[in-house]
Amino acid sequence: MIVLFTDFGPADPYVGQVHAVLLRDSPGAPIVDLCHAVPNFDIQAAAYLLPAYATEFPEGSVFLAIIDPGVGTKRRPVMLEADKRWYVGPDNGLFHILARRAKRVRPCLITWRPARLTPSFHGRDLFAPVAAMLARGEQPSCEPVQLSEPSGQWPDELARIVYIDHYGNAITGVRASSLSEESTIAVGRHKLKHALVFGEVPPGQAFWYRNANGLVEIAVNQASAQTVLQLAVGDRIEILPVS
Amino acid sequence: MIVLFTDFGPADPYVGQVHAVLLRDSPGAPIVDLCHAVPNFDIQAAAYLLPAYATEFPEGSVFLAIIDPGVGTKRRPVMLEADKRWYVGPDNGLFHILARRAKRVRPCLITWRPARLTPSFHGRDLFAPVAAMLARGEQPSCEPVQLSEPSGQWPDELARIVYIDHYGNAITGVRASSLSEESTIAVGRHKLKHALVFGEVPPGQAFWYRNANGLVEIAVNQASAQTVLQLAVGDRIEILPVS
Amino acid sequence: MIVLFTDFGPADPYVGQVHAVLLRDSPGAPIVDLCHAVPNFDIQAAAYLLPAYATEFPEGSVFLAIIDPGVGTKRRPVMLEADKRWYVGPDNGLFHILARRAKRVRPCLITWRPARLTPSFHGRDLFAPVAAMLARGEQPSCEPVQLSEPSGQWPDELARIVYIDHYGNAITGVRASSLSEESTIAVGRHKLKHALVFGEVPPGQAFWYRNANGLVEIAVNQASAQTVLQLAVGDRIEILPVS
Repeated sequence: MIVLFTDFGPADPYVGQVHAVLLRDSPGAPIVDLCHAVPNFDIQAAAYLLPAYATEFPEGSVFLAIIDPGVGTKRRPVMLEADKRWYVGPDNGLFHILARRAKRVRPCLITWRPARLTPSFHGRDLFAPVAAMLARGEQPSCEPVQLSEPSGQWPDELARIVYIDHYGNAITGVRASSLSEESTIAVGRHKLKHALVFGEVPPGQAFWYRNANGLVEIAVNQASAQTVLQLAVGDRIEILPVS
Repeated sequence: MIVLFTDFGPADPYVGQVHAVLLRDSPGAPIVDLCHAVPNFDIQAAAYLLPAYATEFPEGSVFLAIIDPGVGTKRRPVMLEADKRWYVGPDNGLFHILARRAKRVRPCLITWRPARLTPSFHGRDLFAPVAAMLARGEQPSCEPVQLSEPSGQWPDELARIVYIDHYGNAITGVRASSLSEESTIAVGRHKLKHALVFGEVPPGQAFWYRNANGLVEIAVNQASAQTVLQLAVGDRIEILPVS
Repeated sequence: MIVLFTDFGPADPYVGQVHAVLLRDSPGAPIVDLCHAVPNFDIQAAAYLLPAYATEFPEGSVFLAIIDPGVGTKRRPVMLEADKRWYVGPDNGLFHILARRAKRVRPCLITWRPARLTPSFHGRDLFAPVAAMLARGEQPSCEPVQLSEPSGQWPDELARIVYIDHYGNAITGVRASSLSEESTIAVGRHKLKHALVFGEVPPGQAFWYRNANGLVEIAVNQASAQTVLQLAVGDRIEILPVS
């Protein structure tokens, strides 16, 4: 199974070109479009989202993960095996959290090159063929390597909003297992209590909950937390001490 | 064939997780993403839309239909066979119109439970595996049941806008077979005449027509009826008596 | 491989119905959703975009290309073989540039008709079955024909914006091979220099580049050219003489 996780957008003519390469190079391998709406260019948001979804997929899955503002520059193409799943994409921090949390990780610098490599679409020209090779059980030529260390703060739990879905629910980079259900979460001027599910609070009320992928998520029952609480990707949250 | 009809959004990381379950549990079954942009939480709109599309699909198709604001509460999971197609989803009114119009319908309370059932994503954890079982010809454990009666008004024809597409065309819950082509339809302060197709009226002119799924639809040739007529999902329409 | 290129929108319940027909009539043929967000009703934009993407797809691919504001009127349904790929859709100018550039093109008027043909959804009822026939190696009944000549200006290179993607990058109808990298491009009051890739200019800076499909594209590194430069589909660009 090849799983796509990108900021290519679900509407633009990029995902289809990647699919065509995968179908050509790995016919019959199922393709899953996990998400093409990762916040544009936001490597850190992607880095905290990816591990939350990866474990939903069977061992042996190949993730084609591309948030790549530096495409065509010196950033390196990598592939890594982590806990029996493969990841292919740019070495720009995207795999940093995944690798840190994995029990066993083997990063490899991709040295294989395609016949044609456009400067701006390595997703189609380089990463997709590599993912297809892995999906059909072949190993592209590569060299063991250390992943680059991203700059800035990369804590174990990222107390920021990393994704806002079309309902207006705001997903954070904090794993719910890291805090108590007694905790209050502050975002902007709002203080939010925990609820198990949407239907536990009245329509229009804001709360936080452990989403189905284990992350702390801020929501409003039958309304948009984004609108009601005025949220944006990147906003900080604060986990208040349980009194 | 497994047909998905949800308010999960086409861009968010939910449809892909459902696909992964279907591919795992029913490999080889074709998956069709009919619509993931059903108006959020709008059970009634979905209930009038679903039967208009269902007959496009071959007998034996399995519909995974999820508009489920009460996920994780006491609302019941159901599956039903109606006119040789299967439907799987929450018992919250979503299947009310479909069942009312079907010649033969057998609703069943789903008693099967997965090893893991998160409180907020029954689409992935419960309904998708059930749909996959049906697609591969197995019957999940279930008990015959009556569907719940939804509250509020559920007429045979719902004289409201139930969907607005990206062109700005407004689909109503009224079957075109229920009225004459001589009819005038009022929406807001506007009165609209019938046309067969877009090209029958000048660019910029509003009209109503029988859409390709048999529903009354309000449109403007080469422009957005939503913008021109200021329409929103839920708006009432009125079918004026033919004089 | 059947490749879909339409203005049906990625979210609405139209693409899924087309998929269902393709799966019914040509089971097993891979389907690629190249783009469903072609600017609404914009035949000329589509006509300049399509050839830039077509060559990415293997010979023998069948393109189902539908931008069809005149659906249900007298415009004719056509299919054409051009440089070993098939194209199916309305004869409204959509294939004009493709045919002009092809080494060998054979247009054919589709005379085959389905059992049911709704006036407003020939994509589902007529063109999809024809594409499926071609994909399984059959030839629908048709008659050799000349494509209609579209009205208006159809230069070899269309110096207009024909698509804006979700990053805000603006694709033009000009092939980069037609100008020098020394060229300056004017759009509105802005004058843009060439860069090879995004990372070659500082974040926030506008430039033009040859995109991965060979078209001149206007972009801003890590920001939206649409917003920064106030661009819209249809805007003219000007290629300034190299001094």
